Amino acid sequence: MKNQNDLKTNLTMLTDFYEITMANGYFTNGYADTIVYFDMFFRRVPDDGGYAIMAGVQQLIEYLENLTFTKEDIEYLRDCKIFNEDFIRYLENFKFSCDVWAVPEGTPIFPVEPIITVRGPVIQAQFIETMLLLTINHQSLIATKANRIVRAAQGRAVMEFGSRRAQGADGAILGARAAYIGGCCGTACTICDRDYGVKALGTMAHSWIQLFDSELEAFRAYAREYPSQCTLLVDTYNVLKSGVPNAIKVFNEELVPRGFRPAGIRIDSGDITYLSRKARKMLDSAGFEDCKICASNSLDEYIIRDMLMQGACVDSFGVGERLITSSSEPVFGGVYKLSGVEDAQGNIIPKIKISENVAKITTPCFKNLWRLYDRESGKAIADVITLHDEVIDDSKPYELFDPDHIWKRKTVTNFRAVELREKIFEHGKCIAKPRDLDEIREYCMKQVDTLWEEVTRFENPHQYYVDLSQKLWDVKNRLISEHRF
Amino acid sequence: MKNQNDLKTNLTMLTDFYEITMANGYFTNGYADTIVYFDMFFRRVPDDGGYAIMAGVQQLIEYLENLTFTKEDIEYLRDCKIFNEDFIRYLENFKFSCDVWAVPEGTPIFPVEPIITVRGPVIQAQFIETMLLLTINHQSLIATKANRIVRAAQGRAVMEFGSRRAQGADGAILGARAAYIGGCCGTACTICDRDYGVKALGTMAHSWIQLFDSELEAFRAYAREYPSQCTLLVDTYNVLKSGVPNAIKVFNEELVPRGFRPAGIRIDSGDITYLSRKARKMLDSAGFEDCKICASNSLDEYIIRDMLMQGACVDSFGVGERLITSSSEPVFGGVYKLSGVEDAQGNIIPKIKISENVAKITTPCFKNLWRLYDRESGKAIADVITLHDEVIDDSKPYELFDPDHIWKRKTVTNFRAVELREKIFEHGKCIAKPRDLDEIREYCMKQVDTLWEEVTRFENPHQYYVDLSQKLWDVKNRLISEHRF
Repeated sequence: MKNQNDLKTNLTMLTDFYEITMANGYFTNGYADTIVYFDMFFRRVPDDGGYAIMAGVQQLIEYLENLTFTKEDIEYLRDCKIFNEDFIRYLENFKFSCDVWAVPEGTPIFPVEPIITVRGPVIQAQFIETMLLLTINHQSLIATKANRIVRAAQGRAVMEFGSRRAQGADGAILGARAAYIGGCCGTACTICDRDYGVKALGTMAHSWIQLFDSELEAFRAYAREYPSQCTLLVDTYNVLKSGVPNAIKVFNEELVPRGFRPAGIRIDSGDITYLSRKARKMLDSAGFEDCKICASNSLDEYIIRDMLMQGACVDSFGVGERLITSSSEPVFGGVYKLSGVEDAQGNIIPKIKISENVAKITTPCFKNLWRLYDRESGKAIADVITLHDEVIDDSKPYELFDPDHIWKRKTVTNFRAVELREKIFEHGKCIAKPRDLDEIREYCMKQVDTLWEEVTRFENPHQYYVDLSQKLWDVKNRLISEHRF
Repeated sequence: MKNQNDLKTNLTMLTDFYEITMANGYFTNGYADTIVYFDMFFRRVPDDGGYAIMAGVQQLIEYLENLTFTKEDIEYLRDCKIFNEDFIRYLENFKFSCDVWAVPEGTPIFPVEPIITVRGPVIQAQFIETMLLLTINHQSLIATKANRIVRAAQGRAVMEFGSRRAQGADGAILGARAAYIGGCCGTACTICDRDYGVKALGTMAHSWIQLFDSELEAFRAYAREYPSQCTLLVDTYNVLKSGVPNAIKVFNEELVPRGFRPAGIRIDSGDITYLSRKARKMLDSAGFEDCKICASNSLDEYIIRDMLMQGACVDSFGVGERLITSSSEPVFGGVYKLSGVEDAQGNIIPKIKISENVAKITTPCFKNLWRLYDRESGKAIADVITLHDEVIDDSKPYELFDPDHIWKRKTVTNFRAVELREKIFEHGKCIAKPRDLDEIREYCMKQVDTLWEEVTRFENPHQYYVDLSQKLWDVKNRLISEHRF
């Protein structure tokens, strides 16, 4: 599993222009060495789901490790004729030196949690905003959608088939990577197999059938070529009258005598529930009970759920545009907000952004994020956001309270408290332990299993608790009061 | 305007795996040299609009020019252990040799038209399907959405601000390029300026304001740094009580004495219609009638239309996630279908894909695409799809007819017939004339102006005529009949 993306365009300049105008302004105003804290968090789960899946951290790491301004970048910035020459020289010698904490890929995440925190000189911490958000927003969006679709399939295989409708090459490649984290078992995107080891799958398009003189001839040619993995597309002309009978004929004539079993048939149009049930019977009667039926064509979690409820005989699903763009909600709304500034003595001054819209008020301070698991059931009880130096002692009872309705309190006992984030950069150096994509995917499945079923419903899920520690709540409340009066 | 993307990962392997299994099968079945015709077309306009905007041809050209299998690709394919060794050697020496015709970027396009046609050996013409669709689908989607938003703004500037919510780096960079073609005047995406010359714009985020001791201090620092292009973000605390008064104070204290005029203020939250009207009055009273007001925050064509209808005093719009992902409909459903095969004598055998769903029946044959313009008004009357060797003689009356309801006929006179597509590859060599992005953008605006207003409505637009020539209709009808009986 080699990564050939090292050759890729340096993406340092994939940044909003205002990050540079601000950086230049911080520099000339003497803030070059001011240490700040930024948090990434999101406000709601796409599709009104109960949780999202964190993804994209590996690509964020690659971006941060490769941050460097090329000669062309420097020329470009100088040509803008609005930046201070000393600032440009600073960029020429730019060396990323921030600390970064992140929730590991594959973890279920919830609104308002600081899923990433960056600590470092304001010029740097500000500059990386655009790519940090782009990377995590994109992959978390797709991993979250994939996880919904995979759950709808109830253990059946889901393959990512959407490259041709992806929003750009990275949309296809990294989207397929994220879909794998979320639980897909493979992709049609060959380059994602080559670079990330996500198994590439696929057999034939309708054009294969059309090119031959007949469907039967096309099937025969395919079966001869790929006897050990022969999946035939049966809907070019007529699934039940032509496709399935021809497939059975070819299985019998080309595979069985050579000691092979058919891999499957694929249905890509029509009423798949009806067709798959009829096709199943035909295959079974012909002695091909082991021949799988694959469905594709504008699928998503809702259609798959309904098809299975109506008894569709489908063993695997190929899901395209609705997965690779998360078309029902194609935006993961992560934001990146200033939460603190260090003074000359190194004291952290908490920063808050006030808004008339209560949901848009940020949580100040350098923070930590904990997940409490019930020791008996293993289920996740709640997440707690604390000050960075607080420790949740799970040998003692802990009182949770709703930060919006503080009279709602609940004491938990017999739980395990886990720090949810890991430090991935220290003084600009990556210290994250490398993780295999299969390991991330497995971790994701296990973590989703720790959620109560109520949280995993597609519609109207139970809202998982994300609470603040008393100390953090006190600081936030004090800052709000100070701003209001 | 240099393009540094040459360094980018070779995207040859960004292809659906089945393109390779089919290619191998064509090869081993003796179809390596079979010449085929494929068309790209789409079935409906996103957002139920009246037309789409073609975009992405330049990136398709770059992809086709760089088609080559690296040593690593070949190793990967060999490791799959299902491909014929002669086929792998063929790929090692792969040289693209197809002819390609495409509608130029910036052109309004309509459903069922062959916007791209590829002629060449089936292995090649099939192989490029995924990237051809991905590239054109993505950029046409965004150019189409941008054009809607720009029209809603009625001449006011629209800037693309969505990088952080884009689906991957290319989603941001090429999305910004496509948005420019569709009519945006600039982008926040710096790298898109460096590489494509799309003017990068942007001033400050809320974090800039938060970092200083006060909003006033933050504004002062910014005005001193950028006196000639000073746009201040006025909604961090309170637009009317704090933001605008502080901006006016700073304009007066920092800009006017030094001979500068303010560039603008930006409002990013709250009821922008109300706030902009109040802010306009305050700025005017202070003698800053020339100070522009920029609005941002979850905008799209509908919100902009409504804001302007309600008298919002906004001079420019920054549009983010709803543009860069086309969030109301994030998929452009272009497809790529076989339309003909040459026999040994070079005769073109037309191919059709039949479907119970009438809209999914393809149009066979090697075709050409014409647009008829009224000589008097300059307006586009209809598009006509003909056989490739038909000529529409615009010195004579021409009879249009509806291909679905053939009794609907109309004879047009005094028109100009223009072939809509240009040949961009001949025997695998690019022969497209290079076009400047500004030129494409201007061409787009002019071409949209040739559409009747009825066609450009956001909702329920008039359906523009896309007709078949009598000869083409006859072939299609004959093939349908042959398949049915």
